[in-house]
Amino acid sequence: MSNYRLKIQYDGTKYRGWQRQRGNSDTVQGKIEQVLGRLYGKELEIAGAGRTDAGVHAYCQIANFHLETKDTPDKIRDSLNEYLPQDIRILEVEQAGERFHSRLNATGKVYEYHLVKKDYYDVFARKYSWQMEKELDLEKMRKAAELLLGQHDFKGFCTRASKKKSTIRRLDAVKVWETKKDIFLRFEGSGFLYHMVRILTGTLVEIGAGERQIESIRQVLETGDRTLAGETAPAQGLTLISVKYE
Amino acid sequence: MSNYRLKIQYDGTKYRGWQRQRGNSDTVQGKIEQVLGRLYGKELEIAGAGRTDAGVHAYCQIANFHLETKDTPDKIRDSLNEYLPQDIRILEVEQAGERFHSRLNATGKVYEYHLVKKDYYDVFARKYSWQMEKELDLEKMRKAAELLLGQHDFKGFCTRASKKKSTIRRLDAVKVWETKKDIFLRFEGSGFLYHMVRILTGTLVEIGAGERQIESIRQVLETGDRTLAGETAPAQGLTLISVKYE
Repeated sequence: MSNYRLKIQYDGTKYRGWQRQRGNSDTVQGKIEQVLGRLYGKELEIAGAGRTDAGVHAYCQIANFHLETKDTPDKIRDSLNEYLPQDIRILEVEQAGERFHSRLNATGKVYEYHLVKKDYYDVFARKYSWQMEKELDLEKMRKAAELLLGQHDFKGFCTRASKKKSTIRRLDAVKVWETKKDIFLRFEGSGFLYHMVRILTGTLVEIGAGERQIESIRQVLETGDRTLAGETAPAQGLTLISVKYE
Repeated sequence: MSNYRLKIQYDGTKYRGWQRQRGNSDTVQGKIEQVLGRLYGKELEIAGAGRTDAGVHAYCQIANFHLETKDTPDKIRDSLNEYLPQDIRILEVEQAGERFHSRLNATGKVYEYHLVKKDYYDVFARKYSWQMEKELDLEKMRKAAELLLGQHDFKGFCTRASKKKSTIRRLDAVKVWETKKDIFLRFEGSGFLYHMVRILTGTLVEIGAGERQIESIRQVLETGDRTLAGETAPAQGLTLISVKYE
């Protein structure tokens, strides 16, 4: 029995997120497990590092699964790609240490959010970005982002916070940059709560648009009150870029 | 009556090309004319600079049409975008000189073809690129491209060459460059025949893959024999980048 690590890229537009749900196979995990089952004749379970929401994309998601096979890793990759739909691609399969677990061993994740500026359009990015209706002040967004850095209780920046599990996370970097027609927000951290990147983005956008004070960030962090944070940005602008391991 | 110049961007995936055809509205021109008709209550005809094929995209197509209206150009743009589908965007509307004609006045066009290298994937570009199955030698492609430069009879590099119309065109530049996972081919010229960029691309790809001699380019140019050129590259990898005017 070997442990295989997968690098996976997907366009999340058509999927109900990464995580398999009962009674449907229109999740990325479900789709890959279905193809693995067809190829190797057993019910295999794959563990993904990031449980991306419905409509969220991945540039490089990491997953792993255990299998006994004589196929080489490249052969497994090619077989998977042959049967997977075009919006999910296995970039790489490699053998991992027996104890490697994609989610439990992950030490960090990088997400990117893509905004298209007011009065600019990009039809090729329309399913992978959020079209702005207002001008944004990037300096304000950067100042607000600084207040988010470090270890905090991000309870106010997530949906359905669990009472049992910790909502403390460490945000290592938030980078905000622009091209002529785009604005990108890049979040690097130890891990992210449910909807956290999208709420952070929605909040920073409101600050950039002048609809919200920079200082409101502190309030949300201190009170943990979701209603004090901004709107949840649409899923389609968000992409899981990479997963970090020690 | 004013003459308006449009800058248009579109994802050609779902359309039967630019040019309106009888009995269907699933062309880009047909779609825009339909919306203009709804907005201004008359049958307006728009002239496009490049008649892109079914499935070919445009980063910036130019068109023009005549209309009497009190609406400002920005208002015309916004109204069009309100009713057009998301895969067609009007980037700009501006008033042009009375005699401006987008196609007849065009002095050059730039097309780009996007290849994704063997063993690399890009799910986000899957509808806008051609996935390679073989390694390509870019130096060979560049040498072959040089033989295409200048004024030639490109009859052998087009489909359904007209006997009445000239097949002589001037190719000003062919640039071939790469990133880690992509190869781009950029063609600049006075004008392009039906399927010409796609056949040039297909031929250069065969040369890059070592399946065809560089010198075969000369033969096609000399004989005008379509059967001596390479395959027609798929429409989806091609994008009209810009149209040039004096």
